[in-house]
Amino acid sequence: MAAAAEDAAGLAAEPGAGDGRAPVEFRTDPSRYRHWRLATDGPVATLAMDVAEDGGLQDGYELKLNSYDLGVDIELYDAVQRLRFEHPEVRAVVVTSAKAKIFCAGANIRMLAQAAHPWKVNFCKFTNETRNGIEDATAASGQTYLAALNGTASGGGYELALACEHIMLIDDRSAVVSLPELPLLGVLPGTGGLTRVTDKRHVRRDLADCFATMPEGVGGRKAVAWRLVDEAVPPTKWEESVAARAAGLAASSSRLSGASGIELTPIGKARAGGTISYRHVSAQLDPAGGVATVTVRGPQQDPPAGPPGIHEQGAEFWPLAVTRELDDLILDLRTNELELGTWVLRTEGNLRQVLAYDRLLLANTGDWLVNEIILYLKRTLKRLDVTSRSLLALIEPGSCFAGSLLELALAADRSYMLAGTFEDSAGPDPTTPPKGPEAGPAVIAVNEMNQGPLLMGSGLTRLQTRFFGDGDGLAAAEKQAGHMLQAEDAERLGLVTFAPDDIDWAEEVRIAVEERHSFSPDALTGLEANYRFTGPETIETKIFGRLSAWQNWIFTRPNASGPDGALRKYGTGQRASFDRRRT
Amino acid sequence: MAAAAEDAAGLAAEPGAGDGRAPVEFRTDPSRYRHWRLATDGPVATLAMDVAEDGGLQDGYELKLNSYDLGVDIELYDAVQRLRFEHPEVRAVVVTSAKAKIFCAGANIRMLAQAAHPWKVNFCKFTNETRNGIEDATAASGQTYLAALNGTASGGGYELALACEHIMLIDDRSAVVSLPELPLLGVLPGTGGLTRVTDKRHVRRDLADCFATMPEGVGGRKAVAWRLVDEAVPPTKWEESVAARAAGLAASSSRLSGASGIELTPIGKARAGGTISYRHVSAQLDPAGGVATVTVRGPQQDPPAGPPGIHEQGAEFWPLAVTRELDDLILDLRTNELELGTWVLRTEGNLRQVLAYDRLLLANTGDWLVNEIILYLKRTLKRLDVTSRSLLALIEPGSCFAGSLLELALAADRSYMLAGTFEDSAGPDPTTPPKGPEAGPAVIAVNEMNQGPLLMGSGLTRLQTRFFGDGDGLAAAEKQAGHMLQAEDAERLGLVTFAPDDIDWAEEVRIAVEERHSFSPDALTGLEANYRFTGPETIETKIFGRLSAWQNWIFTRPNASGPDGALRKYGTGQRASFDRRRT
Repeated sequence: MAAAAEDAAGLAAEPGAGDGRAPVEFRTDPSRYRHWRLATDGPVATLAMDVAEDGGLQDGYELKLNSYDLGVDIELYDAVQRLRFEHPEVRAVVVTSAKAKIFCAGANIRMLAQAAHPWKVNFCKFTNETRNGIEDATAASGQTYLAALNGTASGGGYELALACEHIMLIDDRSAVVSLPELPLLGVLPGTGGLTRVTDKRHVRRDLADCFATMPEGVGGRKAVAWRLVDEAVPPTKWEESVAARAAGLAASSSRLSGASGIELTPIGKARAGGTISYRHVSAQLDPAGGVATVTVRGPQQDPPAGPPGIHEQGAEFWPLAVTRELDDLILDLRTNELELGTWVLRTEGNLRQVLAYDRLLLANTGDWLVNEIILYLKRTLKRLDVTSRSLLALIEPGSCFAGSLLELALAADRSYMLAGTFEDSAGPDPTTPPKGPEAGPAVIAVNEMNQGPLLMGSGLTRLQTRFFGDGDGLAAAEKQAGHMLQAEDAERLGLVTFAPDDIDWAEEVRIAVEERHSFSPDALTGLEANYRFTGPETIETKIFGRLSAWQNWIFTRPNASGPDGALRKYGTGQRASFDRRRT
Repeated sequence: MAAAAEDAAGLAAEPGAGDGRAPVEFRTDPSRYRHWRLATDGPVATLAMDVAEDGGLQDGYELKLNSYDLGVDIELYDAVQRLRFEHPEVRAVVVTSAKAKIFCAGANIRMLAQAAHPWKVNFCKFTNETRNGIEDATAASGQTYLAALNGTASGGGYELALACEHIMLIDDRSAVVSLPELPLLGVLPGTGGLTRVTDKRHVRRDLADCFATMPEGVGGRKAVAWRLVDEAVPPTKWEESVAARAAGLAASSSRLSGASGIELTPIGKARAGGTISYRHVSAQLDPAGGVATVTVRGPQQDPPAGPPGIHEQGAEFWPLAVTRELDDLILDLRTNELELGTWVLRTEGNLRQVLAYDRLLLANTGDWLVNEIILYLKRTLKRLDVTSRSLLALIEPGSCFAGSLLELALAADRSYMLAGTFEDSAGPDPTTPPKGPEAGPAVIAVNEMNQGPLLMGSGLTRLQTRFFGDGDGLAAAEKQAGHMLQAEDAERLGLVTFAPDDIDWAEEVRIAVEERHSFSPDALTGLEANYRFTGPETIETKIFGRLSAWQNWIFTRPNASGPDGALRKYGTGQRASFDRRRT
């Protein structure tokens, strides 16, 4: 009983991260897919789900009926990314199933039932991000997603469809869409389902309520009448209708034209001795202190002259390479290093070169690849915003927090910028490049990248979020665009939190990091999830805020995850036993 | 360990509701206050907090340093209500402390530490509603609240100040404002603190982060510079400055003028044999079925001709009387009947009379009392929106779901409206008035009350929420204003969920109610909390959504509420022990 109760609270050492198993790997490519088939035919790509039952990331469950676990979703994420970068010709993407009679049964229930709480939460977060990425591809990249439900889509399967712009359901008297989480499992359709049904598809909320209590689902004309799907198509017309709809979506796509894609070559990465190293990004892991120090390095060379050079460099082009590495690192640390509760964010490099790369990108937003790179950086920064780790930015001499990289400091919960120079030329960390007096004082710079292209999920820039309700402060900061700002100015403008000098620096930073480690990890997660989203909410922020927070609560409750909870009893033939008190 | 873990999950039978103790009573009046002193002096009222240490609602804690429990907040709620109705002359309200050196230490920690989870959640919800009511009084009623912090305001004490329009802090080198919940207790400042600091007061989010990790708080000029307070005033100028500021706020108030208030006479109420009865409202409690059937009765007489008659009737005026009773019932059932997970909402009476009362109110919104009554109804309906119970409206012959009372059906998660008439003249419940063929079919009616005066916390009407994203549907429904709509029309227009006829009615309703009872109470709470707030979010909805949901999660976690959690260890001299995994 005690052990089971612990497990309900997420304490048990069950499959999940942080238990000594091999780290979860997010890097993959189509040659290694086990669960998806990606095919392109001119402007239309087809992503067919064909989950290998024995291909679960962990032991203890079979991925029947196209149910998914994190491993399945990692492949989906990779496919969505590759379509954007490797296939400029693709203007519509059909998401369908390669199996008969079933589109997707949603997240694997046995996987969820056996998973520790942090694993559930991380899994849902990544799944949400992938679905948001699908919507971003439709809205900003001109790759419009079409859900072709050739069989039943239940739970997370329907939620995947909800992320698509258009939903077609085969009308064969058998296929339905459903959200059976509440009646069958005692949890929510927490991967955007509840939010998108009402806020995106405009299903009337009372009908949405009924729908979410009907494990048998809704199909055919009723599914259309309730706005759950856009079309119900008889089997005899299925293939031709899907093809016609995909062709129509492709024809009306706003995708920027491009002759040929670039290859997302494998990301080089080493993990050894408490360090994760990429070419432009690295992380020092300090388990005792609960800290990961992430260092992002600026470009080592001048930017190419224009788009031809960018295309030629492809995945080696610094802004794309650094974003891919940062993206992988965020996912890795989040999933595999749960006890590193604080991420210290640093940069190193030539700030003027960062600005030069930004200028190149901003001057060529009409180029499809440049557009994709900026959008990818936007999505990667959004990952930081919803990461349940304290983010502290350290702005030191030799750093390059400018424009796109300044967003790292603006995403942080706090920032510390050295006023003046370090007297000791090595700085606090002898392994890093010289940062002493000869490096000159640290500077930061705002540019156009901070004023629109890299919006948060709330629809605000990070500067707007920072100066929410303070129009004068925002205007003063934006007016400094292009200027090199030293610590005193940056602090006065409100662009950094603190600007200690050499005498106080090491002590202040040490205290901040140690103090963070002393606090309740859960309370920090809640605090940061609130403060980071000042101001308006959107479908996206509602999913990570209202919906996910409620789902996380429900996941911890005995009514779901206790030994007699619905999630644990599902499939056993026994009924769940509920504490009936409404809370 | 097992028992303790159960307690962390809120299962233990600790002080709180539903454990056989006497029900919590929300009705009070100033003659019975133990914790507040209410005084008025012309246009300025003073609400002085003077909490009786031995006046806790439950045993096991002392209310030291003006810390509060639910009982203290019930008095505050009563005082805020009375100021609105009994004191039309009051245009500014000073909230201060009658104790030296301390304004308010926030929610009592021992009370929180010993409370079961549902109690914590209910307590926070009511506290939030009272603070929202203070903001509503400032914004809509012309009673502007001024926080005069004559000593330290920490935690919930500062959150109370945050609900006020203007915050003055005495600058005596001792008084500070603080949010020590995270560092000391491992929970959030969850009564609006995190949201109001950034979204209302526009404290920069990194400074807000620092502030919420500083148990020592911030005082003096720094508190002003960080926007945590509006003024820091030296002790020598304190009284005169507070008086001058209050006078200034009163002078610029928009309060509608009124010669004399009305008395909020005691609400008559009987609780016996599974029934709670008021004059216009009653509830049948069915513990076995987990249902409370709430019946709201329409006016028994014609409305008075105009404002003089309304003022003369005072608290007997039907719209005010029914709202007060409904308000009390909601609070009673929420707090004392946790296992009644479904509220069936019914009405009885003359629909045309309801419309006549609504017309009287709408024609006289310039009258201060009419304004207050409408605002009170608005706040009471908002309570329904955030109530963690399934709400099912039954619209039967003899009911009066029109205008203001139609909001009950629009607030519900689903509604069932009888098509045609009952053949059996008794209807399904023989104790209610005849509803057979002679009563005629049920009708509903939309009016202006559904189109603006009774906004939800999201800033939308319940009709706008219902038809979110469906402008045509909304326009079609609003176009029917004033028309008596039978079930078929109401269903076609989307104003009700289902319209079964006499043959199916009893079975369909029974299944809906029983089915609801079979589901996980937690999952239902999460489902409803998402669906009810379609569309935009405001400070208010963010507090009940993002903030409260995270807080509820944190409350269930062993890091806060487990035997070694911070909330339980506070004051013991022992440090909390944390599971360091970030989630």
